[in-house]
Amino acid sequence: MTTVPSVSSSITIRLEVEARPTAVSELTTAIEETGGIVTALDVTASGHERITVDVTCATRGDGHAEDIVAHLKALAGVVVGPVSDRTFLLHLGGKLRIESKVPIRNRDDLSMIYTPGVARVCEAIAANPADARRLTIKRNTIAVVTDGTAVLGLGDIGPLASLPVMEGKAALFKRFAGIDAFPIALDTTDVDQIVATVKAIAPVFAGINLEDISAPRCFEIERRLRAELDIPVFHDDQHGTAIVALAALTNALKVVGKTIAGVRIVLSGAGAAGTAVLKLLLAAGAVDVVVADIDGVVSRGRAGLTPDLAWTAEHTNPRGVTGTLRAAMAGADVFIGVSAPHIISGADVATMAPRSIVFAMANPEPEIDPDDAAQFAEIVGTGRSDFANQINNVLAFPGVFRGLLDAQSNKVTDALLLAAAQALAAVISDDELNPTYIIPSVFNPQVTTLVAAAVEAAARA
Amino acid sequence: MTTVPSVSSSITIRLEVEARPTAVSELTTAIEETGGIVTALDVTASGHERITVDVTCATRGDGHAEDIVAHLKALAGVVVGPVSDRTFLLHLGGKLRIESKVPIRNRDDLSMIYTPGVARVCEAIAANPADARRLTIKRNTIAVVTDGTAVLGLGDIGPLASLPVMEGKAALFKRFAGIDAFPIALDTTDVDQIVATVKAIAPVFAGINLEDISAPRCFEIERRLRAELDIPVFHDDQHGTAIVALAALTNALKVVGKTIAGVRIVLSGAGAAGTAVLKLLLAAGAVDVVVADIDGVVSRGRAGLTPDLAWTAEHTNPRGVTGTLRAAMAGADVFIGVSAPHIISGADVATMAPRSIVFAMANPEPEIDPDDAAQFAEIVGTGRSDFANQINNVLAFPGVFRGLLDAQSNKVTDALLLAAAQALAAVISDDELNPTYIIPSVFNPQVTTLVAAAVEAAARA
Repeated sequence: MTTVPSVSSSITIRLEVEARPTAVSELTTAIEETGGIVTALDVTASGHERITVDVTCATRGDGHAEDIVAHLKALAGVVVGPVSDRTFLLHLGGKLRIESKVPIRNRDDLSMIYTPGVARVCEAIAANPADARRLTIKRNTIAVVTDGTAVLGLGDIGPLASLPVMEGKAALFKRFAGIDAFPIALDTTDVDQIVATVKAIAPVFAGINLEDISAPRCFEIERRLRAELDIPVFHDDQHGTAIVALAALTNALKVVGKTIAGVRIVLSGAGAAGTAVLKLLLAAGAVDVVVADIDGVVSRGRAGLTPDLAWTAEHTNPRGVTGTLRAAMAGADVFIGVSAPHIISGADVATMAPRSIVFAMANPEPEIDPDDAAQFAEIVGTGRSDFANQINNVLAFPGVFRGLLDAQSNKVTDALLLAAAQALAAVISDDELNPTYIIPSVFNPQVTTLVAAAVEAAARA
Repeated sequence: MTTVPSVSSSITIRLEVEARPTAVSELTTAIEETGGIVTALDVTASGHERITVDVTCATRGDGHAEDIVAHLKALAGVVVGPVSDRTFLLHLGGKLRIESKVPIRNRDDLSMIYTPGVARVCEAIAANPADARRLTIKRNTIAVVTDGTAVLGLGDIGPLASLPVMEGKAALFKRFAGIDAFPIALDTTDVDQIVATVKAIAPVFAGINLEDISAPRCFEIERRLRAELDIPVFHDDQHGTAIVALAALTNALKVVGKTIAGVRIVLSGAGAAGTAVLKLLLAAGAVDVVVADIDGVVSRGRAGLTPDLAWTAEHTNPRGVTGTLRAAMAGADVFIGVSAPHIISGADVATMAPRSIVFAMANPEPEIDPDDAAQFAEIVGTGRSDFANQINNVLAFPGVFRGLLDAQSNKVTDALLLAAAQALAAVISDDELNPTYIIPSVFNPQVTTLVAAAVEAAARA
């Protein structure tokens, strides 16, 4: 799958070539020969003998980009100038800015937004703290909090290196839900200190989105913050994933004519996401779920279960399955993977029940090549944007927080997560449903609106 | 001084009156009779018999606003509708917003600002942490950090109620220096916890502006954060005040033909601001400074000195003055007050040396009515915007941080503070200097530019 060039690895190359009729086509041909995809081409300067051309092309990654540049350098009469990386160019200076909503043109403006006028606003909030939601940014502001220990598929890269993801997340909150989100990347991985820090900085925020914090610490951090804060705390890697997976499963089951209570589900992964997906499946009425982690199927008799896994063993696996993940897949209706790349094959999917559903959500490389899975499963979903049925958290977290903020809610319940999943599934009408369209696009404007409304109603209930 | 109506206490009143020629002038007359100042008047609806008018007027405060409304209600044929407060209207929803700098229009955009493209940017920073200043908002982002214990003249009103000030400060950073500043209002007043929290959230920031933290805790917090962080830490209440006071004094001394080494200075106030002003005066070459606090003049023999006051006694008061603040003023050339309202009188200023300078900077009420001081002093400055020579921190902190960020500096030195004060003083040329113009307007665009350049040069030195 990594053989497909991606816009996310685009480069722009400045080239000087001889001014003859085939000059440009020779360049694009050379790039395409090397496997690049030309997405833009501008002649930026022209003379009688030579022209300057900026060519942008998608590549398969840094090594491939170097190959393309080397190939161009080898062409006769071509001078290769600066090469820039579109993704890096977009990131220069970061992806967020903080703006004043109020004009500051003269002393009168100053006297209202700052001293002396601001003192009356402070006094009003001191007298009635709830007014902070009316008179300050607390109304619409959340923190995106990480410690940088489980960033994307990159692992523990630390707080500084996690910032581009946290800024991106904040940008998505604004784009899809109008929420002001600020990235807080913590220079500590100690649970007590993370809890103390988030509590200490909480006053300005109306919600906390935990992000990319490794398991099992993320469970305790979320549990303690929920108990000790008066604003909602939502670990997106857990609950965002669970909401979108359940929404996709709800629609997929409709397509194949099965019910959640009637299907056998195999869940690969017992980390942050896996645990949350499991709990939401059970809350939604799933009865026969078999969970597998790196040591195989989780069952009551398995030796050395951690407290979390003991809970899982207690609440799943009614048929007492033991052994490997692959063995557990035989006869299953649904496979949901939130684990590791390339751990199952088409042959494993072939052992599943008829009309099977495979969600291979490991990122960036799924548990199985979706093309292989589609040979045997009726419905296949992944976390990738270059295949059908992208099961993407962006479908959930903006609407969830929009609803929480609109309700001025202080807690996240299972009922609320279920309502979000149902609303997300309902964005697609029964007429539209088919095996390649079980989940809407993130750019469908109904997504945030409907999820937010459902969450707000659930929060007020 | 509080008898002057202020735009910062403006109200807008909707009124329905009979449609006769004098209707509007009767309203404005009524408001002016009650001491309000009409600043805007709009007829928002009109009929044959009645018109609706929105009148905006400056008042002396909430009680005065109520008097005006009551007076209007008593007028025959006038129906008073909703009354709104301009300052509160401006604050609805808070004063800041966080925006994405990058467009998110389609999947290609998503793939560059978020997964999978963002991973390459994260990896670049993990390999070279200094790249965070190039590829994330760290480049231009600071925290405005408070614990809400010493907010304006309001004292310990807590973190929530402090937010309007912190948001205003952040808005000023953007307006005057293009800096992205985010308010962090801490739900703790414990020194250890404040230090630990600021350290934990530091990665995303390129600087920390401490704000409205009460003395003496602010000294230890600043000292420890400076020692333990690799980004600059600046307590504006201390150093911002000191820079602006020294700049004003530099120019005032030129006007009266004296030198800093040759004058006797009385400094009222030994808190956060007073201590910083003192240290910067000494660094600038002041020799004869006498400090007074609520217990009178600080001298070596005074009983019960705290460690901070013992330092002050050791480094000031070469003539061994003892007794009251008022007594110390006799023969002094300069009075600088960063203490409490109305603690000296014109009679005290009359005892000062010829061509004396009085900076009464207590906020919002100065140590002495500036009109009274001007009877006897040649130059008078205050912190207020409604008198000449406003000694306002907004003149310093935007340029100081602009210079620190541009230099990617990690520390704040006395040399840097002195450079800022000299640059600020130099905004006014010798030709322009006079007793009512010793300090520039905050809206003078040279202020930030010159201060930033001086700070950047000092930081790089």
